[in-house]
Amino acid sequence: MSELTVWTYDWVPEGPRGFVRDLRLRWACEEAGLRYAVGAVPFDGRETNHLEQQPFGQVPYLTDGDLEMFESCAGLLHLARKSETLMPRDPAGEAETVQWTIAAINSIEIVTLPWWFLKITGGGDDNLTDWVGKRLDQMERVLAGQEWLAADRFTVADLLMADVLRVPLIRSFGHRPASEAYVARITDRPAFEKARADQVAHFEAADRLR
Amino acid sequence: MSELTVWTYDWVPEGPRGFVRDLRLRWACEEAGLRYAVGAVPFDGRETNHLEQQPFGQVPYLTDGDLEMFESCAGLLHLARKSETLMPRDPAGEAETVQWTIAAINSIEIVTLPWWFLKITGGGDDNLTDWVGKRLDQMERVLAGQEWLAADRFTVADLLMADVLRVPLIRSFGHRPASEAYVARITDRPAFEKARADQVAHFEAADRLR
Repeated sequence: MSELTVWTYDWVPEGPRGFVRDLRLRWACEEAGLRYAVGAVPFDGRETNHLEQQPFGQVPYLTDGDLEMFESCAGLLHLARKSETLMPRDPAGEAETVQWTIAAINSIEIVTLPWWFLKITGGGDDNLTDWVGKRLDQMERVLAGQEWLAADRFTVADLLMADVLRVPLIRSFGHRPASEAYVARITDRPAFEKARADQVAHFEAADRLR
Repeated sequence: MSELTVWTYDWVPEGPRGFVRDLRLRWACEEAGLRYAVGAVPFDGRETNHLEQQPFGQVPYLTDGDLEMFESCAGLLHLARKSETLMPRDPAGEAETVQWTIAAINSIEIVTLPWWFLKITGGGDDNLTDWVGKRLDQMERVLAGQEWLAADRFTVADLLMADVLRVPLIRSFGHRPASEAYVARITDRPAFEKARADQVAHFEAADRLR
């Protein structure tokens, strides 16, 4: 097993395949040309069987030799320090990259994920829907004016923002051409395609064992 | 004006005083003994008057000489690189600190903030309420077993997690003695008290000008 290992479930149902968050770490490794192994924890009993590694019973977590960390965004920032492909090394480029990486989760996903969750569980609330629309409009304004979020080049911030925005329910929420073009462009990268195909294959292989 | 400047609104109504997120950056600077100035953008017209600095029309943002960054968590990570008080320098301590700093926003606040928002806007959803309860229970389990989140000492991860958990509606959501003791202990720190008092004074002073 290589030093860098991305941990995910051994299996998930078909619905989330291609969206489980180990994809973020796989994708970053592919972009950076970092060799990594994939480890698995059982999906059955997931809420209690790996709390030492992930106290919320989720995936992914990342191991790098003796280092171990959960939270996909923390893993991304760790990988970004290993490869300039993911984050520039100058202070301004780094600050901008970290800022937009955090914005993906704390300004966008913090609204879109609960909204998505309420939608798929049959709930929903107009106030939250309005908030999602407002945030997506604000992102549309940003993306209409620039090709990349940080440092005029692809960074881990684009990886994470595109992963947040590519969720089908979010992607089809209103017509925002700059955001749509951005998501299409970023997810058209070979590293994303490889990461997604590898994740889907990982879970499909487990189907045969169940 | 010193090199490091925490930017906030010139005024806010009484309700959010003591909770506006510039407090996170003030608090971190106080913990680390970093000198900083406070800058202000107008609260009136906030949704459009400083989009160049903060594309979602919010505060805070941080300037450090020529560097400029929004997202309080990005600012905290930036400050943490300036001071070992906020984050240990060994790779394991740093990884653990970053992991829990991200967890505060992406595992806890991602559920508690929308829930709080729906509550105060008169909405709410049982499914989201259940999710909040589950996440807070998971944090209670963690906090029952350890005094600090990372590296057996106070770090910026505790600062951010305590700031997320201290919101009154969250704090009074069920009985979780370890979490309550944690919030009480972390917010009892002189640096927090100073940051909060300074923020409240900043907004109160503006009352007299309106």
